[in-house]
Amino acid sequence: MKEKELAAPVRNVKMVVEYDGTNYAGWQSQINALAIQDIIEPKLSALACRKVHILASGRTDAGVHALGQVFNVKAPFPVDDDRLMRILNSRLPNDISIKSAETVPMNFHSIRDAVSKKYRYFLYNSRDPSAWLARTSWFFPAELDIDRMKEAVRYFIGKHDFTSFMGKNSSVKTTVRNILSFDITKDERGMIIFEIVGEGFLRHMVRNLVGTLTDIGRGRMAPDDIPKLIAKRDRSQAGPTAAARGLFLVEVNYK
Amino acid sequence: MKEKELAAPVRNVKMVVEYDGTNYAGWQSQINALAIQDIIEPKLSALACRKVHILASGRTDAGVHALGQVFNVKAPFPVDDDRLMRILNSRLPNDISIKSAETVPMNFHSIRDAVSKKYRYFLYNSRDPSAWLARTSWFFPAELDIDRMKEAVRYFIGKHDFTSFMGKNSSVKTTVRNILSFDITKDERGMIIFEIVGEGFLRHMVRNLVGTLTDIGRGRMAPDDIPKLIAKRDRSQAGPTAAARGLFLVEVNYK
Repeated sequence: MKEKELAAPVRNVKMVVEYDGTNYAGWQSQINALAIQDIIEPKLSALACRKVHILASGRTDAGVHALGQVFNVKAPFPVDDDRLMRILNSRLPNDISIKSAETVPMNFHSIRDAVSKKYRYFLYNSRDPSAWLARTSWFFPAELDIDRMKEAVRYFIGKHDFTSFMGKNSSVKTTVRNILSFDITKDERGMIIFEIVGEGFLRHMVRNLVGTLTDIGRGRMAPDDIPKLIAKRDRSQAGPTAAARGLFLVEVNYK
Repeated sequence: MKEKELAAPVRNVKMVVEYDGTNYAGWQSQINALAIQDIIEPKLSALACRKVHILASGRTDAGVHALGQVFNVKAPFPVDDDRLMRILNSRLPNDISIKSAETVPMNFHSIRDAVSKKYRYFLYNSRDPSAWLARTSWFFPAELDIDRMKEAVRYFIGKHDFTSFMGKNSSVKTTVRNILSFDITKDERGMIIFEIVGEGFLRHMVRNLVGTLTDIGRGRMAPDDIPKLIAKRDRSQAGPTAAARGLFLVEVNYK
C-alpha cells in the first residue's frame, strides 16, 4: 500500500469553496495581509507532501464573500476526492469550507474555462441597522426608489465598455464585458438583492454598478443617464463603490 | 432650551437588543474580558451625562447570541426614545443593535417582571461543515434520529427539578423550573432547531438539554431515560453541553 501511495499520479482536482470574507484580505495572496489562498494552499501542500499552487476562477476583493468560488489544483494526492475534501475541511478554519471536490481532465483551467459568473449583492435598506445582517450586507438607511433602479439595470445588460465602473489601477486587455442578466428584488425585511450574471467582470465592477444604482434610487441620477455614463468611459462620473461586505460570488459556470 | 435639557427627568427606558455574541464574553461585565454590557453601558452613560447601570433580563454566556435580549436603564436622557435608540445604534459596533426603546413605568424591572423566555438552539446535522453556518450553529456530523429526540422532549415539559442539567458553580434558591413548550424541527439544509419556552432557566440548562438530546438521537440513551435522569439530580449523568454558538435568546415576555 505504501508504494502505491508514493506512486499516486498527479491529478487535477476542481474544488468549490464557500467563505465568509470578513477576516481576509481577499482571495489572492499578497504581501503583508492574510488571504484565503494563504489558508488553503499550505493545507493542500501538506496533504500532497509537496508545495502546490491553487488557481481560482478570479480574485475576490478584501471582505467579499463566496458561496461558490471555484479553484483547481494539480497534485499527487494519496486519497480520493471525497476523503480529500473531508480532511481539508477538518483542517480549515470555520469561515472557509470546501463544498465539493472532483477530479477533472488535466486541461481543466478554472479561469480560462469559466463561461460565466453569478454575483449577488445585498443592500439592507432600513432605517435601523441589524447586528445579524452587518457582516453580509451594506446598511443603507436612505430611501431608495426600487422601480427607478429596476428601470436603470436594463441599460447594463449586453456588451458594453464598462470603463466608467472599473476600479483604479486595473490593467486589462479590454474593458468590454458582456452582462447576461441583472435583476433586483426586495424582500420583506427591506433587503434589496442585486443578482448579476456576466461572462466576466472588471475590478470593483459589481460594487460600482450597485453604488451607481443607489444614486439612481435616491434621485441623484436618472435611469436613462446610464447610456451616457457608459459612453463617457470615466470612472469619476459614476456613483460610489458599494461596501465589500454585501458582495457574494454565488457560482462560476463552466462548459 | 439648555435649562430644560439639564432638567430632563429620570425615566426608565426598556430596550430590546440583538447581538452576535461571537466576539464577547457574554452579556454581563466581568474581570479581564469584554462583555456586551461593557459596550452598551458607557455609550448610554455618555448620552445621559452621568454613569448609568443597565439591567438585563438575564445573562447570556460567552458566545451566546440574542435576537431579543431586554434591558432597562434609569437615567435623565435629554432626547426621546426613538432618537436615543438611533444615536446609540450609530455609536455601537456592527454586532450589537438596539431594536426598540420605550419609556416604561419606573417600577418596570427587566428580571423580576419577565414571565417567560424563548430560546432557539441551532444544530447543523450534516456530514460536511458550512462556513456560513459556523458562527450561529453547532456543527454535528453524527447521525441523529429526530423522532427519538421528539419523543424525549415531552418529558422536559412542565415543572421539574433540573439539577441534572445545571452548569457547575451555580447558586440558586431553587433548581425547579417550569418549561412551557419544547419543539424540534429540521429544515431542508439539515439544520435541527430546538425551540424552548420556559418561565426561567438554570445556568447552561438549554445547552445541557440539547446535549443530552443528542445522546438520545445517537442511541446512547432512550427517550424514557429522561424521567430517571431528572430524578437523579446529578449533572454527571446527563449528556454533554452543546456549543454556545448555536444558542439564541429569541425573546423575553412581560406581563
